[in-house]
Amino acid sequence: MIRTAIIGGTGYTGAELLRLLVSHPEVEIVTVSSRSEAGTAVVDAFPNLKGYLDLDFSDPSDLLDAKPDLVFFATPHGVAQAMMNDIASAGVKVIDLSADFRIKDQALWEQWYNQAHQSPEFIEQAVYGLPEVNRAAIADASLVACPGCYPTSIQLAMIPLLEKGLIDPASIVAYSGSGVSGAGRNAKVPYLLTEASENFQAYSTAGHRHEPEIVQGLRAVQSETDKPAEVLFLPHLVPMIRGIHSTVVADLVDVSADLQAVFEERYAHEPFVEVLAAGSHPQTRYVRGTNSCQLAVHPRGNRVVVLSAEDNLTKGASGQAIQCMNIIYGLEETTGLNTPAMLPG
Amino acid sequence: MIRTAIIGGTGYTGAELLRLLVSHPEVEIVTVSSRSEAGTAVVDAFPNLKGYLDLDFSDPSDLLDAKPDLVFFATPHGVAQAMMNDIASAGVKVIDLSADFRIKDQALWEQWYNQAHQSPEFIEQAVYGLPEVNRAAIADASLVACPGCYPTSIQLAMIPLLEKGLIDPASIVAYSGSGVSGAGRNAKVPYLLTEASENFQAYSTAGHRHEPEIVQGLRAVQSETDKPAEVLFLPHLVPMIRGIHSTVVADLVDVSADLQAVFEERYAHEPFVEVLAAGSHPQTRYVRGTNSCQLAVHPRGNRVVVLSAEDNLTKGASGQAIQCMNIIYGLEETTGLNTPAMLPG
Amino acid sequence: MIRTAIIGGTGYTGAELLRLLVSHPEVEIVTVSSRSEAGTAVVDAFPNLKGYLDLDFSDPSDLLDAKPDLVFFATPHGVAQAMMNDIASAGVKVIDLSADFRIKDQALWEQWYNQAHQSPEFIEQAVYGLPEVNRAAIADASLVACPGCYPTSIQLAMIPLLEKGLIDPASIVAYSGSGVSGAGRNAKVPYLLTEASENFQAYSTAGHRHEPEIVQGLRAVQSETDKPAEVLFLPHLVPMIRGIHSTVVADLVDVSADLQAVFEERYAHEPFVEVLAAGSHPQTRYVRGTNSCQLAVHPRGNRVVVLSAEDNLTKGASGQAIQCMNIIYGLEETTGLNTPAMLPG
Amino acid sequence: MIRTAIIGGTGYTGAELLRLLVSHPEVEIVTVSSRSEAGTAVVDAFPNLKGYLDLDFSDPSDLLDAKPDLVFFATPHGVAQAMMNDIASAGVKVIDLSADFRIKDQALWEQWYNQAHQSPEFIEQAVYGLPEVNRAAIADASLVACPGCYPTSIQLAMIPLLEKGLIDPASIVAYSGSGVSGAGRNAKVPYLLTEASENFQAYSTAGHRHEPEIVQGLRAVQSETDKPAEVLFLPHLVPMIRGIHSTVVADLVDVSADLQAVFEERYAHEPFVEVLAAGSHPQTRYVRGTNSCQLAVHPRGNRVVVLSAEDNLTKGASGQAIQCMNIIYGLEETTGLNTPAMLPG
Repeated sequence: MIRTAIIGGTGYTGAELLRLLVSHPEVEIVTVSSRSEAGTAVVDAFPNLKGYLDLDFSDPSDLLDAKPDLVFFATPHGVAQAMMNDIASAGVKVIDLSADFRIKDQALWEQWYNQAHQSPEFIEQAVYGLPEVNRAAIADASLVACPGCYPTSIQLAMIPLLEKGLIDPASIVAYSGSGVSGAGRNAKVPYLLTEASENFQAYSTAGHRHEPEIVQGLRAVQSETDKPAEVLFLPHLVPMIRGIHSTVVADLVDVSADLQAVFEERYAHEPFVEVLAAGSHPQTRYVRGTNSCQLAVHPRGNRVVVLSAEDNLTKGASGQAIQCMNIIYGLEETTGLNTPAMLPG
Repeated sequence: MIRTAIIGGTGYTGAELLRLLVSHPEVEIVTVSSRSEAGTAVVDAFPNLKGYLDLDFSDPSDLLDAKPDLVFFATPHGVAQAMMNDIASAGVKVIDLSADFRIKDQALWEQWYNQAHQSPEFIEQAVYGLPEVNRAAIADASLVACPGCYPTSIQLAMIPLLEKGLIDPASIVAYSGSGVSGAGRNAKVPYLLTEASENFQAYSTAGHRHEPEIVQGLRAVQSETDKPAEVLFLPHLVPMIRGIHSTVVADLVDVSADLQAVFEERYAHEPFVEVLAAGSHPQTRYVRGTNSCQLAVHPRGNRVVVLSAEDNLTKGASGQAIQCMNIIYGLEETTGLNTPAMLPG
Repeated sequence: MIRTAIIGGTGYTGAELLRLLVSHPEVEIVTVSSRSEAGTAVVDAFPNLKGYLDLDFSDPSDLLDAKPDLVFFATPHGVAQAMMNDIASAGVKVIDLSADFRIKDQALWEQWYNQAHQSPEFIEQAVYGLPEVNRAAIADASLVACPGCYPTSIQLAMIPLLEKGLIDPASIVAYSGSGVSGAGRNAKVPYLLTEASENFQAYSTAGHRHEPEIVQGLRAVQSETDKPAEVLFLPHLVPMIRGIHSTVVADLVDVSADLQAVFEERYAHEPFVEVLAAGSHPQTRYVRGTNSCQLAVHPRGNRVVVLSAEDNLTKGASGQAIQCMNIIYGLEETTGLNTPAMLPG
Repeated sequence: MIRTAIIGGTGYTGAELLRLLVSHPEVEIVTVSSRSEAGTAVVDAFPNLKGYLDLDFSDPSDLLDAKPDLVFFATPHGVAQAMMNDIASAGVKVIDLSADFRIKDQALWEQWYNQAHQSPEFIEQAVYGLPEVNRAAIADASLVACPGCYPTSIQLAMIPLLEKGLIDPASIVAYSGSGVSGAGRNAKVPYLLTEASENFQAYSTAGHRHEPEIVQGLRAVQSETDKPAEVLFLPHLVPMIRGIHSTVVADLVDVSADLQAVFEERYAHEPFVEVLAAGSHPQTRYVRGTNSCQLAVHPRGNRVVVLSAEDNLTKGASGQAIQCMNIIYGLEETTGLNTPAMLPG
């Protein structure tokens, strides 16, 4: 059994980790920490876990007393950085769901997150946790930086095209919609049911923190001789709890390519990427609560439109983190992640 | 492995059976029938099952060719009645999720369902599939009549009180709210998102088909010397997909009884009934997609208010049907039903 | 033109007052105050008012400088009490949408609101602003205490029966469901879309602040010789923005009465109460954003069930306040309140 | 008073016309026809109109007996074509909300709507009812073809840029999201609350009927020497009742232009187009139930992103139709359309 610890267990990615890990056959949850809730029962915050988890929240400072093999950070940015040195020194592996170690360019990170990086010495060794690209590196990693929700959906949509040089890398526009849980479990007026339901809007149109991560990820799969990818990322808030859908458009450099075949071949052996039949439309409800990403590719004249649907808290966060854990420990990659979505639901 | 067949696999209770059964370790789904969809892939109707179930819908007339051990009927009323004789003759067990065999009084059934019963000879042997009351009989049953969604929530709320004679049996008023999936997968204008969201209303206030079933179930647990239970049942339509919540009020005959203790003792060994701490309020989201029913008991002067929350498609239908199957086959009762609800979600 | 001021213009009842008053032909809004937002434009908080209202929020202490004829308090309880003396001294009329002056029994108010009343000398003169009962008194009032949202829906449902002594006054059970706006514009986790949608639950089952107000209102219409009305009030939270629906049950003392006729006669001349045809079910969407209350009466054996639907922010708060204003100033009662609900919507 | 008739009064655009027209001070509704509902009261279909409209649905064949001055068609495509000749012969004006006369190229219409046009002789005289472009022609029109919901939102977003030649006309990509009412009042499974809520998806990615209308409208405002506009239109279904939001991206030909000023000047005198401050994000809730369109322009390097929000049933259909009627009859353009959106709501 893998002794796992979760730091920041009171937010939505923490809740999703707990939901999935209590059913994982190879995992023992040894501690769940929350500075604000230390000493209270986890099931008081998450009554859905009654009967599945009998732990109190611990203080983060007591983390190593629980002797974990692996720590998941489900915290806002800045927290993992501050604790990283102690944990690494103890030989404990880390899967960080926050943005702390995703960006390789420290200055770029500091610009977008508006603070000094607290443990830059770990940036280089951090492995970007997108299994469809980095499976081998993840297997050997001590520190995995899990991708953001939007970046996962957009990278999976564009990687097959960029790897083969089929699109103009400067032409990518990614129009995405996210459920409200993407804003976290934060009590803010705009996310009240009374304000966010019966509404649809764009936000951060001037620029969003996930944009540099998307660009970095796309460039990582390009041939070195290609001009580097650029992305215009346009996020929207959708009146639903969970789900991300991205509609990504790019200019084709070769309109004769069999794009459907390109996608099917690229993801033929990926357990969590489903390439739909030509002409299909992914729907977020079909992947709700699962670690799957549905893709559909639509050629439109000299452009291509790729549609991508995932659950922002599962494949976009906690499910993908567990997929990375499975890879690290040599388990079947789908372990603990193989239940279908509810329908209706 | 239990060879199971599902008849009526295109509705919501059929979909829920499929979702749960594909993860059940002791079940093999041998056929899923639908007269209207015969020959098409099940995953075309339910894309969430892609990778979990590789079957085409069959014609119901070919049912026995699949050599099932057990048949689930997830059909409108009237269908199970018509096929019952053939299936029983073949020695195959039946769990019927429809109303066909729930009511012991044939005339009463015919009055509420406005048609002649087509196989009354099976009514007597049918076991009402509420494990919290009928566990032993279910274990030996050849035909289980699964309770309706509302009746489950209301019976679980009142049984502890009626068994001990703590309330006036004529005083029960049950105010319930159901998600829209309770209306089935039927394309009718009132259930469109545009009509049913941002709305709340009562319906069938003059009388609802579940009322006689509730009354029959409550009387079955009363002492013979008590006056028979009556229920004023008041259903409401809630703008959400899943969930039933009942608020049941009755007059106490003994205001000194420790009602919290009565409930805790009654359900101490029930895996799917959770009695919340005094003063609590069940929420449908905490049991969404699970087979659990949350109960809370609130004494209010000379009355008692019992709150009850379940998922109408799981404990209120398909989950309970699988619980019954587990009992019949001597499995751990929670087999295939032991995953927590998603939160948020 | 009536010079009106609104205190507490940043909450939902304030927003609803503003929406309605900008279209009211006899009203000029002279000031809108908010301590926290003083100096910022009202349209920054409420972009829907762009082009309809060109004012900045003022500080409440500057209220009388605007020389209002009438002040609406759309504030939490406690605020109107503190300012009442100054306003009354200036000869300005007050319509208070908060709970400050609704309860005639000062000790009862202090018990439920857990604080000392700050201006008890105004309690007696305050007129309870339910036009269907108090029209004449409202016309002459200097201080109107507007009814709460739940109390309005339940009183309108029971008044015809209590006035004629047709029910047992001790038998009333009122089950109500409210949209989330009933909780105000408060950033709290349980009211986030992610927590409150796809959920249904009871709350305050042990007792709710509106209960004494309901009881006081019902007793006010009873014959003095009747035993005083009691109400078991059971509120629920419905996953929608607006609307209140009450299902009120009582024991009939005379099962032969023509209840439909009783209701139709009682409300024959009420512009905002609509008695639906026998057998009907009110729906909150049909009165959304309007000042109407739909009622339907269903006899069920020796009980009666009355269904009642209103918009909690309109007939349950701001619309009713304007109706009272119209009465005070001798206007047609429907002035500024005569637009139909949107459908769908 | 303008004697108006509505054909097809049972759908959502018909309902919205009725809601708005009953409050219009210069309009008398003389007949509302529906073939399927002829003889039943309009308020039975739309209980929100109780007290506002006392008419039965008439048969469309009796239309002219009501002696209307103006007929609104709120019908599926094909109906207005079939009746046009009779109505025009009687000298009655027509405002058609369907697609029948929007497309000037008959062959193109027949290709997208897959049927022969039944009255092509009226195509040329039909005036496209977008007041922001065609005000003068609308004033003199006998037949107005009202724009579709998506085309209105996208044209208003792009017209200022195309008129001044500021963008590459071949580079336009329009991502739009619509509430479910855009699918009409049709009982189809995908639009049930159980299927459409908690979901987000693209649809018609291969091509949508509104695309040729958008292209025609954009080309109409271009300089003749420009290369003709092309649009990649990508519609999405949003889990809400009402609202359309478009995010339109194009390549700038001159990155130094003051785009904010261009938009503000273009729409300075338009009563129903609101150009938000730089950096803003339109929200569909702020224009819900109103005839306004909110726009915001965001330069992003060598591209421009224009955000556009409207109510699909109001500015996207029935409100715009009434705006056209006001223009035809020389009324203030905002007559009957000047009420703010509800908030929350």
